[in-house]
Amino acid sequence: MYSESELILKIRERFRTSDTSVDIGIGDDAAVVSLPTGFSAVLCSDLLAENSHFQRHTHPPESIGYKAIAVNISDIGAMGAIPGQCLVSLAVPTDIEESWIDGLLDGISTACRQFGVQLVGGDSSAAGRVFIDVSMLGRVETGKAVRRDGALVGDGVYVTGSLGGSALGLSLIKSVGPTHPAVHRHLYPEPRHQVGRLLASKASAMIDISDGLSVDLAHLLTESSGSARIDADRIPLHAGANLELALHGGEDYELLIAGRDLPSKVGGVAVTQIGEITSGETGRIVLVQDSRERILEPRGWQHFQ
Amino acid sequence: MYSESELILKIRERFRTSDTSVDIGIGDDAAVVSLPTGFSAVLCSDLLAENSHFQRHTHPPESIGYKAIAVNISDIGAMGAIPGQCLVSLAVPTDIEESWIDGLLDGISTACRQFGVQLVGGDSSAAGRVFIDVSMLGRVETGKAVRRDGALVGDGVYVTGSLGGSALGLSLIKSVGPTHPAVHRHLYPEPRHQVGRLLASKASAMIDISDGLSVDLAHLLTESSGSARIDADRIPLHAGANLELALHGGEDYELLIAGRDLPSKVGGVAVTQIGEITSGETGRIVLVQDSRERILEPRGWQHFQ
Repeated sequence: MYSESELILKIRERFRTSDTSVDIGIGDDAAVVSLPTGFSAVLCSDLLAENSHFQRHTHPPESIGYKAIAVNISDIGAMGAIPGQCLVSLAVPTDIEESWIDGLLDGISTACRQFGVQLVGGDSSAAGRVFIDVSMLGRVETGKAVRRDGALVGDGVYVTGSLGGSALGLSLIKSVGPTHPAVHRHLYPEPRHQVGRLLASKASAMIDISDGLSVDLAHLLTESSGSARIDADRIPLHAGANLELALHGGEDYELLIAGRDLPSKVGGVAVTQIGEITSGETGRIVLVQDSRERILEPRGWQHFQ
Repeated sequence: MYSESELILKIRERFRTSDTSVDIGIGDDAAVVSLPTGFSAVLCSDLLAENSHFQRHTHPPESIGYKAIAVNISDIGAMGAIPGQCLVSLAVPTDIEESWIDGLLDGISTACRQFGVQLVGGDSSAAGRVFIDVSMLGRVETGKAVRRDGALVGDGVYVTGSLGGSALGLSLIKSVGPTHPAVHRHLYPEPRHQVGRLLASKASAMIDISDGLSVDLAHLLTESSGSARIDADRIPLHAGANLELALHGGEDYELLIAGRDLPSKVGGVAVTQIGEITSGETGRIVLVQDSRERILEPRGWQHFQ
């Protein structure tokens, strides 16, 4: 296993700053980043904990590093913002293999390149289990961030891409290889930040689907003091996934958007209307299936269960 | 134990935003913060892992919450910057007592109030052990951040406050109560961000002493391509601490500053010159004690040992 100073040196060599908005990157007490005039800072963090979010014997380290970055990109994108820089805080057992760390850094590096994000700092420690927390700085034109609480009665409810694939992949991960499309989707989610950015001006509210459609729609409705009517037949299912996985499976990292007259495709990604915002009891979701209505209870990923 | 949604609601109620630079706080995909014109964003993160940084049966939860914030304040201060907002990512065992979580939040809340920082987001998860990672956004006038790499031959080497207290406290924590001055210092370090801010214009290089004087001085010298001569007799010792603890004990969270003609006291905090930057081999520290010189090898906190 690398010593802590070797690890920091390795990260510093590997993630040299080429981003001109970074005044000070890795290697000081803190990083210093300039924002262009007229923009506000957008900040989020997402943690991945061993045995809660992944298992070391089933999830390749590359996928963990990639995903730790990608899930933050998804959050930045759900604000209609542009990702910029990130910090990585990493705790690992002292007996972990160097190849595992190398794989993790490969995944982080791949994601940073893919999403145009610069690693500018972080922290490291020993711990009994792997823990990785990424925080990210993005930028958005001041006053233009898309909140969760702006949905209006009569807005359409839209989702990007397809749902249920990640949960399907997780259920299959031990039986099929990482190249199976659903498993690949679970390991390497594609955050929709570019779609979020392009639709920001048309969206009245936006959230990323990380905990599952039922849970994240309930969040959006609660914040917006609205209710929704969703048509089960219109929910785009990932190949092989059923409605249950699409409604309650987590980690799809698609966007859920309330708005009017959204295009059906943005940057090659499908945008599908699945229902409408209605004026019922706050947070209530009515699911229409085979011409029958039922109340959809939010039920998805709860880390503490 | 709280459910995850109860915990998030509790945090959101408790840390309501009063900070007018926060456009969007807890409860959305990401927070949105405005920076005043002419300022750059300053970003850092610091993690505390159970059994590496603290033990649950010796460290009160209040101190862990407080310290998670304070150590980031120290990093922001070491850039000559002003702390602003923070994110808290928290992983806890599912069987942890609610009173422990309440204590942790009390400590976070105390520190946020004390240092004028607003909690604007974060993440939570289950995990086998407690893990808390705080990331912080500060601000500094563009181009005015104090780096580690600016020390010049002939600069004085200064430290704030006194050293060795935290390591002494850690060694005593099981035998004396938390009110013992050294234990209190270990549990509730006082970051010197106000001193850092006031001395920023006079400092050529600055770093906070988190790993120990010998290690952090070596960092500053390596970055600055310089060496230093330190006078053991001038190092300010915390009451009860010896030179060994002052040189190699970590977590004092004082500032180490290179500069010229610094005042001996700033805002009630002593600023003591302990040596000079010299033109020797990069990174070399000569320690003068009882008129004898020796090379001081960096030796302090290494998380991976």
